[in-house]
Amino acid sequence: SIGIAGAAFANEDLAKMSENPKDWVMQSGDYANTRYSTLDQITKDNVKNLQAKWTFSTGVLRGHEGGPLIIGDTMYVHTPFPNTVYALDINNDGKILWKYEPKQDPNVIPIMCCDTVNRGVAYAPKTDDHPALIILNQADTNVVALDAETGKQVWKTQNGEMTDGGKGESGTAAPLVVKDKVLIGISGAEFGVRGFLAAYNLKDGSLAWKAYSTGPDKEMLVDPEKTTQLGKPIGADSSTKSWEGEQWKTGGGTTWGWFSYDPELNLVYYGTGNPSTWNPVQRPGDNKWSMTIMARDADTGMAKWLYQMTPHDEWDYDGVNEMILVDDMEVNGKKHDVLVHFDRNGFAYTLDRATGELLVAAKYDPAVNWATKVDMDPNSETYGRPLVDPKYSTDKNGEDTNTAGICPAALGTKDQQPATYSPKTGLFYVPTNHVCMDYEPYKVSYTAGQPYVGATVSMYPAPGSENMGNFIAWDAAKGEIVWSKPELFSVWSGALATAGDVVFYGTLEGYIKAVDEKGNELYKFKTPSGIIGNITPFEHDGKQYIAVLSGVGGWAGIGLAGGLLSPDNAAAWHGAVDQGREQGTEDQVVGTAGLGAVGGYAALADYTALGGQLTVFGLPD
Amino acid sequence: SIGIAGAAFANEDLAKMSENPKDWVMQSGDYANTRYSTLDQITKDNVKNLQAKWTFSTGVLRGHEGGPLIIGDTMYVHTPFPNTVYALDINNDGKILWKYEPKQDPNVIPIMCCDTVNRGVAYAPKTDDHPALIILNQADTNVVALDAETGKQVWKTQNGEMTDGGKGESGTAAPLVVKDKVLIGISGAEFGVRGFLAAYNLKDGSLAWKAYSTGPDKEMLVDPEKTTQLGKPIGADSSTKSWEGEQWKTGGGTTWGWFSYDPELNLVYYGTGNPSTWNPVQRPGDNKWSMTIMARDADTGMAKWLYQMTPHDEWDYDGVNEMILVDDMEVNGKKHDVLVHFDRNGFAYTLDRATGELLVAAKYDPAVNWATKVDMDPNSETYGRPLVDPKYSTDKNGEDTNTAGICPAALGTKDQQPATYSPKTGLFYVPTNHVCMDYEPYKVSYTAGQPYVGATVSMYPAPGSENMGNFIAWDAAKGEIVWSKPELFSVWSGALATAGDVVFYGTLEGYIKAVDEKGNELYKFKTPSGIIGNITPFEHDGKQYIAVLSGVGGWAGIGLAGGLLSPDNAAAWHGAVDQGREQGTEDQVVGTAGLGAVGGYAALADYTALGGQLTVFGLPD
Ligand SMILES: O=C(O)c1cc(C(=O)O)c2c(n1)C(=O)C(=O)c1cc(C(=O)O)[nH]c1-2
Ligand SMILES: O=C(O)c1cc(C(=O)O)c2c(n1)C(=O)C(=O)c1cc(C(=O)O)[nH]c1-2
Repeated sequence: SIGIAGAAFANEDLAKMSENPKDWVMQSGDYANTRYSTLDQITKDNVKNLQAKWTFSTGVLRGHEGGPLIIGDTMYVHTPFPNTVYALDINNDGKILWKYEPKQDPNVIPIMCCDTVNRGVAYAPKTDDHPALIILNQADTNVVALDAETGKQVWKTQNGEMTDGGKGESGTAAPLVVKDKVLIGISGAEFGVRGFLAAYNLKDGSLAWKAYSTGPDKEMLVDPEKTTQLGKPIGADSSTKSWEGEQWKTGGGTTWGWFSYDPELNLVYYGTGNPSTWNPVQRPGDNKWSMTIMARDADTGMAKWLYQMTPHDEWDYDGVNEMILVDDMEVNGKKHDVLVHFDRNGFAYTLDRATGELLVAAKYDPAVNWATKVDMDPNSETYGRPLVDPKYSTDKNGEDTNTAGICPAALGTKDQQPATYSPKTGLFYVPTNHVCMDYEPYKVSYTAGQPYVGATVSMYPAPGSENMGNFIAWDAAKGEIVWSKPELFSVWSGALATAGDVVFYGTLEGYIKAVDEKGNELYKFKTPSGIIGNITPFEHDGKQYIAVLSGVGGWAGIGLAGGLLSPDNAAAWHGAVDQGREQGTEDQVVGTAGLGAVGGYAALADYTALGGQLTVFGLPD
Repeated sequence: SIGIAGAAFANEDLAKMSENPKDWVMQSGDYANTRYSTLDQITKDNVKNLQAKWTFSTGVLRGHEGGPLIIGDTMYVHTPFPNTVYALDINNDGKILWKYEPKQDPNVIPIMCCDTVNRGVAYAPKTDDHPALIILNQADTNVVALDAETGKQVWKTQNGEMTDGGKGESGTAAPLVVKDKVLIGISGAEFGVRGFLAAYNLKDGSLAWKAYSTGPDKEMLVDPEKTTQLGKPIGADSSTKSWEGEQWKTGGGTTWGWFSYDPELNLVYYGTGNPSTWNPVQRPGDNKWSMTIMARDADTGMAKWLYQMTPHDEWDYDGVNEMILVDDMEVNGKKHDVLVHFDRNGFAYTLDRATGELLVAAKYDPAVNWATKVDMDPNSETYGRPLVDPKYSTDKNGEDTNTAGICPAALGTKDQQPATYSPKTGLFYVPTNHVCMDYEPYKVSYTAGQPYVGATVSMYPAPGSENMGNFIAWDAAKGEIVWSKPELFSVWSGALATAGDVVFYGTLEGYIKAVDEKGNELYKFKTPSGIIGNITPFEHDGKQYIAVLSGVGGWAGIGLAGGLLSPDNAAAWHGAVDQGREQGTEDQVVGTAGLGAVGGYAALADYTALGGQLTVFGLPD
């Protein structure tokens, strides 16, 4: 029938549209999350001439993550809370075609762990069931579908429970449109939120399926016999058995990162976040399925395979970073359709994405020290598990003990900032953190909607380094760094590889930079504010452009974004989070505020201030 | 002695520094307020190649007026409330050398009539008495002198009384350093503030002199015998006699505009604002010396001459716009050192600045209709006075009567946006408004610190026009428009003329534009937000640059800046201002909010959103 055909179109159209390099129809560029553009007008020879073409202030300050979408002549730009969405006219230097300004309860601001960020809107092409849609995952967990042409609301649904008797759930993840559904994640593992991924029907916003990260098999949408980890069925009650009592109910594993999709396998890929609390002593067991890569059927949500990277996390190494899908990669002499994932825990994983077979797991920053390696021996008892250095086990060292010198810091060797893959070079270009930490877990009690953190953290550059970041090239078949370009601060923006042999990324100081395939810097331009957004390429009237949002913030920039460099505000932050724990000197109070990022990134205030601006770059006419 | 020599240096150094086109040492560029730069690398031939070189977000939204100062390698940038000041390193793409963040009572925000603007900081060179200073006139009327090298406070003084038992006084005007003093204005005529100009000693911030705009001769620093208007002594009690009872005490005449200085005559020039209230029926008389150009001795504050442009104002035509000083201008066959002033009331005045002789008074927008002309007959009883068209007399038409079709609107043919003068062409380039209004005065009562407005205003483009602004060239000797370039909205930014035969200005949509001496548009670039700031030229490492602040707001942009396009907020605005008056339909409530600017400029929301960004432009390397 027409209805069914229409529904099918949504998916096919979007996949097809994502092959047109003139547009940028989803945050990741394509379902494979490669963030690669085949546009090649901007080359390594002429990129030095790049110039700002037009700019647009979003009217909102704090951390601007994600990036604009491009559909024909229209650019869709979103902001952090209050999550304003603009449709801008590309033909007219960004004249505002429509603006959507949700009214949200500002009480959501303090329950967002890592700034009031939003990783962008999704686009769904018109079908018989609905007009073309722009879908927004609001901070307050309302999901809104807007008519892409008019900005008028088509439907609205509530994905989580925010404040006021809620559970401290919030929304930051970019939605992903797959077929006739849209996938929506949830945030709040610092509030003991029980993570899930939900799929809503594009037609009317009704729930299609919901897969929890922890809990009973039925609620997790796992089949004890058919869902596998490393080739073996996970068995019954795999999650609940890995927690004490009912801790899985407040066990975290939120889904605030990026989602990928393989249309042929019809599988959706994503990772789950940290187990709650940050105090590992309080939650014995593997805490399944936090810190896990999940492969699920897009239609039903049923899990095909899972892989827990960091069982029983003791460092807050959320597993939510993007999964980049590459076909036909030769690993150890055999070709695989792989999934490559740069985890917070400092290991880069290459897996066969059809089976979940572990092919490569290697450190992508030599500073990583919490585990010596991932056990790659299929016959070992600890196959696939990281071999933890007891010196850096915050669980072993125990509550109220400060474990010093752990690398990476809680924000990982990479956090939300997505990497890019160039099929031309076969390499991944990865924005990374080069930061270590002290971590002191302490006992906390759970109250719904209240912080449930349980660790004091301080952060600093990796020993012997002055740089807090590197931009690296990675060979995912070999598990090797090809080159590494130091950056003063963590590179908190996404990267973009292009067929012009130029790779783009942004820095926390606010520079947009272009490098060649060897990491040589070819161009830089200081945008108004620190860049934690991602880079959108597009073509218009026969010319190639790139667009990027500036606006310092995110976890790394929370000192600036949340005003936590002020001792008063830092003390108030501790008052809200620490459940009465003594906090030491003023320096310590500031240093450990914002879950440790305030002290670590304090020097950022010498380079940039809050902002919220779009800059569109192109070559001279 | 060394001390005296040092004090003298402050003035001489600053005057000398202002002749160095590489720097920009005061908001107006020079004491004469010409805003002319002798830099000529950027020419009418190459300006089309101009490009953004680096940018900086100020971390503050709302209206950004004024512009950066340049002293050597350092750029000083200020913001609207909370009036953050940054010292930026020009050698390093604007790295932050220091940042000053005053803590101000946010209750000052609602007592600022026309957005939380600030027109910029002043610089005072080092003397034996003090280090080099950056002087800030805060919204809350605190005046702060900062060490230009470190940002540390050297002294602080309170210029007015803000809220909490105060009088609703606020600060927006740029200070002007003259010799060993700094001139500071006051805002608040919409709150019945009695205007004054104060001079503080640079050494320690102590008061040197204070000259009220209204009141007893002594407090006004006028000499009944020696202070003249149009060549005649003003006589005793000239102000108090021109008001009923003690109305002069709440009579307005604030000093929130620009100040000029003639070092040879040692005279300071500035204009006074509207009489309070906006309801003329309530305040019979000429309401002296509101709406007046003042020429005062820089050392003592004593007035040499005065000229009231709009006696008994009935339209809110504040007389505060800048006085541009030009030497040796030939008017009617005779050379004069003149002062040229584009008044809100739609007349451009050319006066002999030594004597106050009125040489030219002519409409600089043909739409002006409230007066037929200014009486230029020295023998006439009404010499120097505008001849009011009774049709547009809101006083005659009376309280609670809507007088329609008055041109210009209350915000005048020009408001705070400063014009520029090119000695190369002998012409003035003037950003103007092309807006008319309906004005309905009504009775109000005075309460200290509360709005004291008394008129409902709505604004719209001049009849027969779609453009709400023009950028014009003006011959001040002849009193003639040379050319006029229409702009969609009022041009609310300052203009800059350069020796490269290029004139720059910004638009409310956010474009920076360059035109040639004939008004042909040579270049435009869409900056992040609407431009109401002024243009700063400078040279660095042998290259010419221009810098400008974006950030829509000011009175024209108050709908966006104050959120008054929302019916709820507009109603709340009326609730605070209208003393209980009935406001009509929702459209009317929004339309007449913000003293009439919200409705008039509503379409601005289709072009730009709030911001606060610096953009530095230069030619390609
Ligand atoms: O556990 C969670 O639910 C959760 C949510 C978020 C988020 O939604 O932004 C972050 C994190 N955790 C987190 O661990 C983290 O490092 C982080 C960084 C950022 C960011 O935007 O910079 N968000 C988050
Ligand atoms: O009467 C006053 O004290 C006063 C103050 C100000 C100000 O300080 O900004 C403005 C005005 N009046 C005013 O009439 C006016 O048109 C105006 C425009 C602006 C602006 O910045 O856009 N300020 C002011």
